[in-house]
Amino acid sequence: MNINRKIVLKKSPEGIPNEGDFELIEEKIEAPGENEFLSKTIHLSLDPYIRGVITGRHIYSEKVNIGDTIVGRTVSEVIESNHPDYQKGELVLSSNGWQEYGISDGEGVRKLNGHQGKLSTALGIMGMPGLTAYAGLLTYGEPKEGDILVVSAASGPVGCMVGQIAQIHGVEVIGIAGSDEKCNTVRDVFGFKDCINYKTEDIDQRIKELCPNGIDIYFDNVGGDTLDIMTRNLAYEARIVLCGFMTQYNLSTPPPGPNLGPIVGARAIIRGVVVYDHYDKQDEFISKAGKWIQDGKVKFIEDEVIGIENTPAQFCKLMRGENFGKTIVTMQ
Amino acid sequence: MNINRKIVLKKSPEGIPNEGDFELIEEKIEAPGENEFLSKTIHLSLDPYIRGVITGRHIYSEKVNIGDTIVGRTVSEVIESNHPDYQKGELVLSSNGWQEYGISDGEGVRKLNGHQGKLSTALGIMGMPGLTAYAGLLTYGEPKEGDILVVSAASGPVGCMVGQIAQIHGVEVIGIAGSDEKCNTVRDVFGFKDCINYKTEDIDQRIKELCPNGIDIYFDNVGGDTLDIMTRNLAYEARIVLCGFMTQYNLSTPPPGPNLGPIVGARAIIRGVVVYDHYDKQDEFISKAGKWIQDGKVKFIEDEVIGIENTPAQFCKLMRGENFGKTIVTMQ
Repeated sequence: MNINRKIVLKKSPEGIPNEGDFELIEEKIEAPGENEFLSKTIHLSLDPYIRGVITGRHIYSEKVNIGDTIVGRTVSEVIESNHPDYQKGELVLSSNGWQEYGISDGEGVRKLNGHQGKLSTALGIMGMPGLTAYAGLLTYGEPKEGDILVVSAASGPVGCMVGQIAQIHGVEVIGIAGSDEKCNTVRDVFGFKDCINYKTEDIDQRIKELCPNGIDIYFDNVGGDTLDIMTRNLAYEARIVLCGFMTQYNLSTPPPGPNLGPIVGARAIIRGVVVYDHYDKQDEFISKAGKWIQDGKVKFIEDEVIGIENTPAQFCKLMRGENFGKTIVTMQ
Repeated sequence: MNINRKIVLKKSPEGIPNEGDFELIEEKIEAPGENEFLSKTIHLSLDPYIRGVITGRHIYSEKVNIGDTIVGRTVSEVIESNHPDYQKGELVLSSNGWQEYGISDGEGVRKLNGHQGKLSTALGIMGMPGLTAYAGLLTYGEPKEGDILVVSAASGPVGCMVGQIAQIHGVEVIGIAGSDEKCNTVRDVFGFKDCINYKTEDIDQRIKELCPNGIDIYFDNVGGDTLDIMTRNLAYEARIVLCGFMTQYNLSTPPPGPNLGPIVGARAIIRGVVVYDHYDKQDEFISKAGKWIQDGKVKFIEDEVIGIENTPAQFCKLMRGENFGKTIVTMQ
């Protein structure tokens, strides 16, 4: 077992990525240097933001160049350590990327010693997507009992968490998702009042039926037409939380956005949430989310495949919107 | 003198209005009823929002139909009164609209007995445009010493007041306007650091030169491409105050707006200002603005014509962006 299998960028994707943009290579596992540790990846998180990193448009990460290992958050186990703070056998949240083994100096690493429940949730509902939902909703959405919230990409890890946390705060929640199967899950598993299939239904008409007095909070994971429709269906003093732009990650030029006239009429506020600003809320979030999961108030679903070699196909599926739940690759 | 001359809507304008959309008619001056007064118009304010009222898209006013007198705020003198609160000879801020005489029951009327300085400023710098600038800038713009503010339609009554109030608060101000003559006035009369002629200069390039660290406050009176460019040149935690959409008042369908991705990156806030929400600040504003004018800290310019018959041409000029300063019609 001295071989590390990893996925590198073969060519820069145009539009929606395909498997040919990536390449599986094998190399000898390197030894950790001074103040470094080697960890074996257990779970790898696939997230839409990675598309932006590959293109160099994600302002918080360095661009992935041809031949580079693709980046990504991982749950891994320390197997060899020259770092005083990390011991062999410890479980950590790390950034090994798309590979079976990774070396780290501890920067950005979090120990998972106290983690409750399924380990992979540290990458999803209990991890970055969960904190994004929690911080974005509570900091900028300002949910109040009786509000109506709409969230797009509602079956994804951020969307489902936004809707479930909102319900815990007495908010009525409508989801938007891309298939009847997703919509059924959003209603039946996550307890949303309703869910609109944007591929087969008229979103504007359905929103007017479901929210005749307008939307108090729109939590946006997609941008595009859906965002435009929501701006025209706002309640007075509505809050729009911009979180993701799934409709444009695969485009080379950012498309126009919604006309902002209705924002003035509704006295609405538009803000964006960037999870990196909210790590101070992480402990509070993990403690609450752990309890919510335990109490059955928060459910989650995962779209898991096994084996590093299946990562490119799984990522391309995510970028086509065909994933169903938090997208995870579990190593063999 | 028992004839009232007034301008009515002849046909609904398509695109930028032209004089043929309006008609001057004469009629006998009516007598005020019980609890009403008759006033003679002195100054009439022409404002871009009137275009929306004519089309029925201004959500705060009833649509102007064919044959109706066009609406507008006026300074007028009470000449006959059956209203206990208004005496003959009093000067009032009223809504006579585009006519030489108007009857009012006092609703929405404000007495101008204590007005200081030029009377027409009650319609401009000391009136609704001034309050819009004051409330929008201070409530949503949150100006701080050392901030950089950009304001579009900078030579107009809202724009010039935003820039001047911002300077009083220690903010560096850049204007955008539609001619070299306007830009010179914005710099020389209103004291802005600089002004960009959007018709002849590359706004994006000039903003990058003038604000290399980005814009802290963008006060938007125009929408369209200018708004889009500003969203891509924001400083961290910037504030965008939406006030007017001059680029789209003459369009039948609202065009798309800016891509909102950069709002997230900059942690910016987008809000709109509607002056009707801020009448509680009117007394405070008038008191401060009066002093600023007296102290020479706030200047104003007016684009004035004489005679009700010149109102349509003056309004069309405003809607073509060819006005220069606060647009006023003074009656003969």
